[in-house]
Amino acid sequence: MPHMTPEEFRAHGHAAVDWIADYWTRVADHPVLARSAPGEVLAALPEHPPETGEPFDAVLADLDRIVLPGITHWQHPSFFGYFPANASGPAVLGDLLSSGLGVQGMLWSTSPAATEVETRVMDWLAELLDLPERFRSGSAGGGVIQDSASSATLVATLAALHRAGGGAVNHEGIRRTYTVYTSSQAHSSVEKAVRIAGIGTAQLRVVDTDPDTLAMDPGHLAALVAADLAAGAVPTLVVATIGTTSTTAIDPVPEIGALCRERGIWLHVDAAYAGAAAVCPELRWSHAGVEYADSYCTDPHKWLLTNFDCDAFWVADRAELVGALSVLPEYLRNAASESGAVLDYRDWQVPLGRRFRALKLWSVLRWYGAEGLRAHVREGVAQARQLADRIRADERFEIVAPHPFGLVCFRLRGADGPNEALLAELNASGQLFLTHTRVRGAYTLRMALGGAQTRMEHVEQAWKQIAATASPPSRR
Amino acid sequence: MPHMTPEEFRAHGHAAVDWIADYWTRVADHPVLARSAPGEVLAALPEHPPETGEPFDAVLADLDRIVLPGITHWQHPSFFGYFPANASGPAVLGDLLSSGLGVQGMLWSTSPAATEVETRVMDWLAELLDLPERFRSGSAGGGVIQDSASSATLVATLAALHRAGGGAVNHEGIRRTYTVYTSSQAHSSVEKAVRIAGIGTAQLRVVDTDPDTLAMDPGHLAALVAADLAAGAVPTLVVATIGTTSTTAIDPVPEIGALCRERGIWLHVDAAYAGAAAVCPELRWSHAGVEYADSYCTDPHKWLLTNFDCDAFWVADRAELVGALSVLPEYLRNAASESGAVLDYRDWQVPLGRRFRALKLWSVLRWYGAEGLRAHVREGVAQARQLADRIRADERFEIVAPHPFGLVCFRLRGADGPNEALLAELNASGQLFLTHTRVRGAYTLRMALGGAQTRMEHVEQAWKQIAATASPPSRR
Repeated sequence: MPHMTPEEFRAHGHAAVDWIADYWTRVADHPVLARSAPGEVLAALPEHPPETGEPFDAVLADLDRIVLPGITHWQHPSFFGYFPANASGPAVLGDLLSSGLGVQGMLWSTSPAATEVETRVMDWLAELLDLPERFRSGSAGGGVIQDSASSATLVATLAALHRAGGGAVNHEGIRRTYTVYTSSQAHSSVEKAVRIAGIGTAQLRVVDTDPDTLAMDPGHLAALVAADLAAGAVPTLVVATIGTTSTTAIDPVPEIGALCRERGIWLHVDAAYAGAAAVCPELRWSHAGVEYADSYCTDPHKWLLTNFDCDAFWVADRAELVGALSVLPEYLRNAASESGAVLDYRDWQVPLGRRFRALKLWSVLRWYGAEGLRAHVREGVAQARQLADRIRADERFEIVAPHPFGLVCFRLRGADGPNEALLAELNASGQLFLTHTRVRGAYTLRMALGGAQTRMEHVEQAWKQIAATASPPSRR
Repeated sequence: MPHMTPEEFRAHGHAAVDWIADYWTRVADHPVLARSAPGEVLAALPEHPPETGEPFDAVLADLDRIVLPGITHWQHPSFFGYFPANASGPAVLGDLLSSGLGVQGMLWSTSPAATEVETRVMDWLAELLDLPERFRSGSAGGGVIQDSASSATLVATLAALHRAGGGAVNHEGIRRTYTVYTSSQAHSSVEKAVRIAGIGTAQLRVVDTDPDTLAMDPGHLAALVAADLAAGAVPTLVVATIGTTSTTAIDPVPEIGALCRERGIWLHVDAAYAGAAAVCPELRWSHAGVEYADSYCTDPHKWLLTNFDCDAFWVADRAELVGALSVLPEYLRNAASESGAVLDYRDWQVPLGRRFRALKLWSVLRWYGAEGLRAHVREGVAQARQLADRIRADERFEIVAPHPFGLVCFRLRGADGPNEALLAELNASGQLFLTHTRVRGAYTLRMALGGAQTRMEHVEQAWKQIAATASPPSRR
């Protein structure tokens, strides 16, 4: 098949947009959790690639026939698993425009607007979240879009190593005992980063948490750091979390930050999910202490209406980050970079190439405005409170952790078995989808609110189903 | 602003599609290289985010008014810089559909179709490129989409470390002298991966190249490996390149592969740009020796009509890759993963989250078919040959390296200054865009053909301009 002409693109593009509009309109008609068995979609696809081209309509038809039955519908109003992955119209269209422009913004010079729109929207977002001035582009720091919080944690680790080793790690590699600290509730990406960076999990110190709040114990952190210093190790990085994945626990960042500053340890704050909450002044208490952070990230692709992938990462001293990641071959040299007057975001991330992802974030911030974003976050928090009220009113259940944001962790009192059975039965119904965690060892249901299509009626409906499935108690 | 309704999305979506169709129709009217000064786009954007929402039309208007003047037009038919970043209608639409579905395919269970379509299209692409059976999903290996070849090199490095250290690196970190080998012509991402993985550039051995072909010298490689073994180091990884970034040199993979097999060293083949050539049987000689590779990557987002980002990465033994990258917290546990019957691609990459990028590759392979892809690659190669013929017929110029694919490296005979001036004058014209490199120390112009919109007439026109700008010789 020859190239698709602009006129063909116009026609097929309208059809694709219509397909999405129809999908969003009818998404609630699908079972939330895919019902396909392993290998079913694979078997429905031809074993060999086509020798000659096919019309685009064939892709759309197979999307309905083969793909949709194998989709777990993250945009379903009753998808309550993991954390939400908010899609929105303005985000999808901003990303579409980025694809159409087809620019690769690895260097400022390879598309100045791709860099400068990103710089501006990251400053906007920092302002919306009330982040410290030292994360703004006018300071020694600045913000950049990463694909995910995992990558943000990795580059924070590399910047921390660069600082702790006085720049020597680039050349000599990991030749000393660099230690990293995070709580038992931290995201698995911290362990992954410690592995990838060559530090090794033997150098990852798992800090205890408060038994009730599941927040990091700063006293235990201080003791671990002191022991490592006494043993000649180099305490390098603390990863504190605002809104852990398991239960949205909030580490005591002010105490942790003061210790990090005293000891010269890099503090990375992972607010992948809960950063969005900081758009609301009444929720900013959750961000106490971020002024201590050397780096901070949050995922607009979770709760801030910007399609995956879009992680917002800020650093207070960009020189450490660039020092860790910049390699300059001849074929990338250019006058603008050498002038020092521009930012080259390739040096702020693992990959060299870059999509123009700022367009989707720009589109979202402009469509919703600060007001619209706050309304969205408040709706998710209100949904969580309402759900928690319902749970508290039913003595069969217990809420097992604080729920400051849009996630509620709860369980049937007693043994794990009935809880596992309850979750399995709920998810098999196709009417809603929840995931699980373990809290103080006990199997616990996680219900994450705040989906872009989730309204209070879906929460009420879900609770009715949960309560009904859990009864009569004799069944358990 | 409240959420964009499906009906609003339909209307704005049609407008966005039309904007792209119009852009592609008129892209040749723009100067190829952006003319904005540092800070110009930034200054044109409001300093603060909007408090209330704005209509989507405002974004489209600012795209024309503020963004386009700051864009370097990678889709311009006379963009000859770096390597092409082929966009195409089917790719853009496949990606749009992925955004609309809004699924996050980190685990098989979080959307089985996202995993299985990827598995199938990666098998298709392996077949189209005639890659070894051991890279197919039915073997112990398989393929996965990464964002970029840089990330592919990094995960190959981590898998190689996992194998070389017998799995100990995860826990203990880099505690031995693991050495990595690549040629002086390899991509900067090899050095970046060596840094990120904590190996350190002191352990990166830069292998000499043949002075004419710029291909890796396997004799020198063998000598370096022998010296390291004698010194007690652990030779871990060789990165060979098929189509280097500077000049598209081809390392002698058969000889390198035999050595790697003999010594138990992981061989990663980086064919980021030139892998696309293997869709054409007459160009597969360039891929001799890939049967030795432990891992291999190519970028459909360069020369294979699939918008950035889309790197295709294959591994022969996925257990080493997963061993290096898998971390399993409770909140990701699920029955399908525990059954062992499915692939969880989160364990094949750095980030946890994943877009459904396979949709765009699926859409491209189906729209073009094998025939269409071959025609596209052949057109780029033909363009390069024609350009090279023109250059050879002009005695002022010399071609400084072989040009087996779609890149021609050439220069005015003599000093660097006139070449630098020539490039600057050409790029300032706005009519075309080339980049540069250094070959055997000499400043050299790189002209990359094979853009999705580039036709032979654009090559002829560009050559006329180059020849005219270079004359009269007295000016230089």
